[in-house]
Amino acid sequence: MGPDSSQDAQTVSQLGEFGLIGRVTSGRVQSPGTVLGPGDDAAVLAAPDGRVVATTDVLVEQVHFRLDWSTPHQVGRKAVAVNLSDIAAMGAVPTGLLVGLGCAPDLPAKVADELLDGMWEEAQQLGIGIIGGDMVSASSLTISVTALGDLQGREPVTRAGARPGDVVAVAGRLGWSAAGLAVLGRGFRSPVAVVGAHRVPEPPYAAGPQAALAGATSMVDTSDGLLADLGHIAAASQVGIDVRTEQVEVPQRLTEVASALGADARHWVLTGGEDQALAATFPAGQPLPEGWREIGVVAEGEGVTVDGAQYEGPIGWEHWR
Amino acid sequence: MGPDSSQDAQTVSQLGEFGLIGRVTSGRVQSPGTVLGPGDDAAVLAAPDGRVVATTDVLVEQVHFRLDWSTPHQVGRKAVAVNLSDIAAMGAVPTGLLVGLGCAPDLPAKVADELLDGMWEEAQQLGIGIIGGDMVSASSLTISVTALGDLQGREPVTRAGARPGDVVAVAGRLGWSAAGLAVLGRGFRSPVAVVGAHRVPEPPYAAGPQAALAGATSMVDTSDGLLADLGHIAAASQVGIDVRTEQVEVPQRLTEVASALGADARHWVLTGGEDQALAATFPAGQPLPEGWREIGVVAEGEGVTVDGAQYEGPIGWEHWR
Repeated sequence: MGPDSSQDAQTVSQLGEFGLIGRVTSGRVQSPGTVLGPGDDAAVLAAPDGRVVATTDVLVEQVHFRLDWSTPHQVGRKAVAVNLSDIAAMGAVPTGLLVGLGCAPDLPAKVADELLDGMWEEAQQLGIGIIGGDMVSASSLTISVTALGDLQGREPVTRAGARPGDVVAVAGRLGWSAAGLAVLGRGFRSPVAVVGAHRVPEPPYAAGPQAALAGATSMVDTSDGLLADLGHIAAASQVGIDVRTEQVEVPQRLTEVASALGADARHWVLTGGEDQALAATFPAGQPLPEGWREIGVVAEGEGVTVDGAQYEGPIGWEHWR
Repeated sequence: MGPDSSQDAQTVSQLGEFGLIGRVTSGRVQSPGTVLGPGDDAAVLAAPDGRVVATTDVLVEQVHFRLDWSTPHQVGRKAVAVNLSDIAAMGAVPTGLLVGLGCAPDLPAKVADELLDGMWEEAQQLGIGIIGGDMVSASSLTISVTALGDLQGREPVTRAGARPGDVVAVAGRLGWSAAGLAVLGRGFRSPVAVVGAHRVPEPPYAAGPQAALAGATSMVDTSDGLLADLGHIAAASQVGIDVRTEQVEVPQRLTEVASALGADARHWVLTGGEDQALAATFPAGQPLPEGWREIGVVAEGEGVTVDGAQYEGPIGWEHWR
């Protein structure tokens, strides 16, 4: 956005609500599907499928992110990524974002600018933009993102369609964000590979629609951790899921980090949240789409087991508990 | 929702994220257009027009509402109303809501229940529901609502279409919320008519689509105050707008309240925000739709004048200023 140095010293209070809104959108390129972008009472977005997919996630400073661990740009990317990942998990492609930003009046405008830059960067990877939003005073930096998406004629892939005999597969990284969080929690800033994975997830966006095209019977994004999110599929589908650890890759890099910290890399892979990998079930006996790897099976029953047994230890994250 | 008395004593922390999410949706009736409601990675909503209208507003405790002035139920209704009003201001009808709720772990579950009850009540007036959301820990009670809507084949009515010669008209109440706020600010709780108007606006939802059908050339909701929001139309349309005070009704009730408080009722009508009335411009020489009343004219020029002169005093509300 290139604010000059006098603007760098500004706070959002000095910039004002309308000044900040101008900086959200100034010079940005909206997607071809944006009928009406920011600046009116509401935005208008093409919904060619005749149905719209919609999801909201809220991130709060000190709860979901720390500005001493991540730059505002990284936080912006993550806030968008966690929402776009939910769109992918339905088998849809994203079409636009709305952003509600709450911040203290004395927040440097530069921080808000970088946050919004990060949001735009992540969005534009997928050819979409921020089509609307709201900016308000709040004691904590609070970022509410709503993502909209299009099913392109496909049926949504819900959590409820897994059937006994299906195979369970994942796409994307698992355990990297948990490893990065463990490193940051010990006061380290490296290895960059895992710390970076915690700061900005890399959801396998394309794998969602590809899974839908390949006939995935259920899908979820692993925001809470693999076992916890497979538990959502098991509950919604009224089936049991068994994860076969011989099929679950534990990357060498995570093993090294775990070893240095006295932690368990496999635990990160099975239970670590925030990598925004996708987990899905597919009919057995057919090739998985590119980027998907088999990790288990669906059976009659309920709940999630690991190698046929209950997993020892906490398996996920729940707010307020 | 009928939680029993043992639940009344619970906090959201004791209830847990998934328990609270269950209470958002349990026993609720979704609209026929809801393809997939809450409980999956994202919701899916019919978008019969092939375009979707979308808007977000965030409300923060102590900034936008006070729980010693309004009940949680009233706050919930207002949080939804301000968003649905934005959908109406595009000439659209609402189709669904997503809600991001941030609250402290020790918030009584009863408060969250009442808040969500209020949201549902306002939504169901228009036949829609909460189709998705997110619940997170936050230091202040923060409510982020995204409303989606459908244009039913009409073109969106933006802020940018007013033309010299058009008439300016409003639908809905003006000044009532400001009067209520003034009363509350002096420590009073009555008259109920104005205090209630501040607590829960009554946007003229149907007047938005009706204005679109009648050929409105521009429209805005008066969340910031009549003159400020007409200023948005004037700026976007590159025209001037003159409000004729002889046409602007100042309700007797507001005059009485203003007299008791030593305030100016006309100022409330012209500049008070949060009534969520609609203001629009229409081609001259044709009857206005039901519920709309003429208050001024569009001319060449810029900005908003009152009886041909600049208005004395502050005309609106801007965050952080």
